[in-house]
Amino acid sequence: MPVGTQGTVKAVMPRELRELRAQIVLANTYHLLVRPGIDLIKHFGGLHTFMNWQGPILTDSGGYQIFSLAKLRKITEEGVEFQNHVDGARTFISPAIAMEIQAVLGTDIAMVLDECAPYPCDYDYAAQSAEMTMRWAKLCKEVTSASSRFLAQDHRQDADATSPQQLFGIVQGATFDDLRRESAQAIVNLNFDGYAIGGVSVGEPEEEMMRAVETTEPFLPKDRPRYAMGLGTPPQLLEMIARGMDMFDCVLPTRLARNGTAFTATGTINLKNARFALDKCPIEENCACPTCQEFTRGYVRHLVKAEEILGLRLITLHNLHFYLELMRQAREQIQRGTFDEFREHFVSNYETRDADLMVQ
Amino acid sequence: MPVGTQGTVKAVMPRELRELRAQIVLANTYHLLVRPGIDLIKHFGGLHTFMNWQGPILTDSGGYQIFSLAKLRKITEEGVEFQNHVDGARTFISPAIAMEIQAVLGTDIAMVLDECAPYPCDYDYAAQSAEMTMRWAKLCKEVTSASSRFLAQDHRQDADATSPQQLFGIVQGATFDDLRRESAQAIVNLNFDGYAIGGVSVGEPEEEMMRAVETTEPFLPKDRPRYAMGLGTPPQLLEMIARGMDMFDCVLPTRLARNGTAFTATGTINLKNARFALDKCPIEENCACPTCQEFTRGYVRHLVKAEEILGLRLITLHNLHFYLELMRQAREQIQRGTFDEFREHFVSNYETRDADLMVQ
Repeated sequence: MPVGTQGTVKAVMPRELRELRAQIVLANTYHLLVRPGIDLIKHFGGLHTFMNWQGPILTDSGGYQIFSLAKLRKITEEGVEFQNHVDGARTFISPAIAMEIQAVLGTDIAMVLDECAPYPCDYDYAAQSAEMTMRWAKLCKEVTSASSRFLAQDHRQDADATSPQQLFGIVQGATFDDLRRESAQAIVNLNFDGYAIGGVSVGEPEEEMMRAVETTEPFLPKDRPRYAMGLGTPPQLLEMIARGMDMFDCVLPTRLARNGTAFTATGTINLKNARFALDKCPIEENCACPTCQEFTRGYVRHLVKAEEILGLRLITLHNLHFYLELMRQAREQIQRGTFDEFREHFVSNYETRDADLMVQ
Repeated sequence: MPVGTQGTVKAVMPRELRELRAQIVLANTYHLLVRPGIDLIKHFGGLHTFMNWQGPILTDSGGYQIFSLAKLRKITEEGVEFQNHVDGARTFISPAIAMEIQAVLGTDIAMVLDECAPYPCDYDYAAQSAEMTMRWAKLCKEVTSASSRFLAQDHRQDADATSPQQLFGIVQGATFDDLRRESAQAIVNLNFDGYAIGGVSVGEPEEEMMRAVETTEPFLPKDRPRYAMGLGTPPQLLEMIARGMDMFDCVLPTRLARNGTAFTATGTINLKNARFALDKCPIEENCACPTCQEFTRGYVRHLVKAEEILGLRLITLHNLHFYLELMRQAREQIQRGTFDEFREHFVSNYETRDADLMVQ
């Protein structure tokens, strides 16, 4: 899922997303709540109409962003009170309010409100947090079963009105296997439309990330989508797929593009580098993206150096294509029964640069 | 001519320019000379190939930008020495060098090196400056007649190699009628492929601007393109057309877009304004641009307020369409013999906001 934080995948038009064959985009409830506000999006008939993207949209619950961006957040059993990072206004979100907001946004997949425990995190905090997340999940499930789904349908004027908004549960438990197992069982018992694994990619070593997914996965029903939240590098995505994950959202393609960084099959390259100045090749040979079809590395480098918006746009298009194409290939290789060889080949050829993981 | 200062019309891809039916773009020799440098563009086979725009390109000579942007410029009969605004490197440009640079860029229309006198400017300075510009024009003409046109052809791998680079002369003379007449006669005597009127839109009152054009126009041959440089607002363009001008370049559509300002038939609107927050209309009713076909004022306002790149991109596309469509309508009305009514109607309905002219 390309990430469209503020109701736009940065620098990209919906028609370009269609050309890139994006199947779904993610939007951040917290950001939209802060600006332009939910009532405004309601006025426009929901997020699909507002941003003119008729394909599926998944919204997070806002929890993760509140914990990472907002000031003076105060978490209680009832929910979380915070001051937003734009104008400092105080807001309170409860599980029921998170559901109501996402219903009004009218997106196709809503996420339950959860607390994403930080890394590192002691056992007691992680246990209490995961338990509260379970209670919140139950409340989210109850409130949507009772009313919000109808609300969601009311608001989804442009989407397929016959398909109700889906609700995904989120497994937490930090880096503790027993908490992950307990959380997974409790969440799955609530019978959600899909399951996400949260609290990964929060700064923990990659082994911890993989172990959290491996511990959780056996508890997730095979006939429901599994979504590893906030991931990741191209090799991480393939490793996650190998561990049974189906869905991902990741800011790297768009965020790194704004830094001049482009993805290739062997790792990222930074187009600011002087070695690309005279380079007449596309960012990646044989790439079918709009950028590689038309522009050289040398030209893109000039744009990036001259701080021209077209530079980050061209790299954004390439990077989104790279990620979407990698996922298409993964699906194809799974169907052919050759995914493991594909993954091993890709991962062994790809070098992850630490610097790419630091870019905020 | 949409302005592509640094080898890109800001935020816009060449394919979008084609969709907007732009017939020609302007590129700034000074900016390209400073970054990425002429040798680099030569390495890529000229500016067309470098920026992947196969349509016509006009380059200015660099003079105007040197006078307005560069530091420590020193003008002598031989040319102008300056420190560029990016890395402060010293460069010298003579009429012959300006021709050589534009030949290497391989653009379709080159401009002679001129000195654009400031406003206000005393008579003696304006006279001496206009005379030097005439001598420089003669040198430019001589050097291109002798050799550079062949050079230009060599470099224009992707353009129509059978059409040599055209060279336009520039009439100066500040706000003094006799200097304008003298300059026009001298420049026309050199027999250029087209004629530009320079030193307008440099801060003088609009009446002075119109008078400079009116004074110059009778001396310009009817069978050559006439180009009023650096103009202007939509009404100014129509008034210039009424006074016999054929070509314009203007940064307003792209520059104002980055400020949230969009053109409409009655004047500009700034999308940052709160009154557009709930507005479900397109920027302009019945506008055929890609932005108005797909997006509301309310959504564009959200993007601008949230400082999303897509916001300025959408307004840029609208504004470029607005200007190009205005020129298409002008041509059509001229052919129908109804241009005067068209112009009067447009100008009387259009309100120019002073603020728009101040945006740098």
